[in-house]
Amino acid sequence: MSLYDSSVPQFKKMLENLDRWLEAAVAHAQKKSFDPNTLLSARLAPDAFALVRQIQAACDNAKATPARLAGKEPPKHPDTETTIDELRQRVRSVLDYLGTFTPEEFTGKDERLIPLFFLPGKALKAADYLNEFGLPNFYFHLTMAYAILRHNGVELGKRDYVGSLKLVDA
Amino acid sequence: MSLYDSSVPQFKKMLENLDRWLEAAVAHAQKKSFDPNTLLSARLAPDAFALVRQIQAACDNAKATPARLAGKEPPKHPDTETTIDELRQRVRSVLDYLGTFTPEEFTGKDERLIPLFFLPGKALKAADYLNEFGLPNFYFHLTMAYAILRHNGVELGKRDYVGSLKLVDA
Repeated sequence: MSLYDSSVPQFKKMLENLDRWLEAAVAHAQKKSFDPNTLLSARLAPDAFALVRQIQAACDNAKATPARLAGKEPPKHPDTETTIDELRQRVRSVLDYLGTFTPEEFTGKDERLIPLFFLPGKALKAADYLNEFGLPNFYFHLTMAYAILRHNGVELGKRDYVGSLKLVDA
Repeated sequence: MSLYDSSVPQFKKMLENLDRWLEAAVAHAQKKSFDPNTLLSARLAPDAFALVRQIQAACDNAKATPARLAGKEPPKHPDTETTIDELRQRVRSVLDYLGTFTPEEFTGKDERLIPLFFLPGKALKAADYLNEFGLPNFYFHLTMAYAILRHNGVELGKRDYVGSLKLVDA
């Protein structure tokens, strides 16, 4: 177990999965003859994030978590996407950024303190930051995006969520 | 980072959060004068798990993941819950089981092979099992349960999802 192995490769794979869900959403819209971009404003409750914001948040968790663990500044994205194509570009931009990390950047940093911007004066140790904050929030927004797509009829199943596994012979 | 730290304490905290969401669901139902147990059959798509099954699955991931990592047999639960009270008993039963694990049971097991019942002949290394399968599936079903409750008007916010953090002074 390491900070790198538990973050970067998994964030990458899940964002690649997300990209395929968006592809499936476009295919579904074409089949049903509606504008796929209407899905971006779909939400599960009036005071919950719409799909566009869920995907922006998942992207932000995926880039900011390794950046903060490694002590780097993540790239900025201005949250201006209005189409699925633009969201997919954002996903690819974060995938490119995740590709810049090396395992060595995380070595020996489990206990490093990471200050919390929303709780001035407070911090989490890097391992706790990943386990208690980075991973749960990433999976939250990712699953919410999946849930909104499923709720709107996009044909996705659990395998599309889990994606590929590092299988070995038993 | 360790198999134990990335699983047992986080599963415990999130199941305690889930228990509070169910408490909020009962309070919401009382306020709106409906039977809270009607929520158990709520789902986000006709071919998606209903709330009861999402919670059973989250409980199963929370008990089976550490059990498989540590090489133990988890307790069985027969999926017979028909009320929120019964679901909360199941959550508490899994919390009790999680309380039986010690960090030492996971030491040195990162590379141990865990066979996959759904892919005969294939396995995942324990660390991959947690990162690629245990955690994503647990958060999936947990977030789906949260999403169903939010979709049905239960007053929950992101803090109720994240729960307490192991804060230290920055």
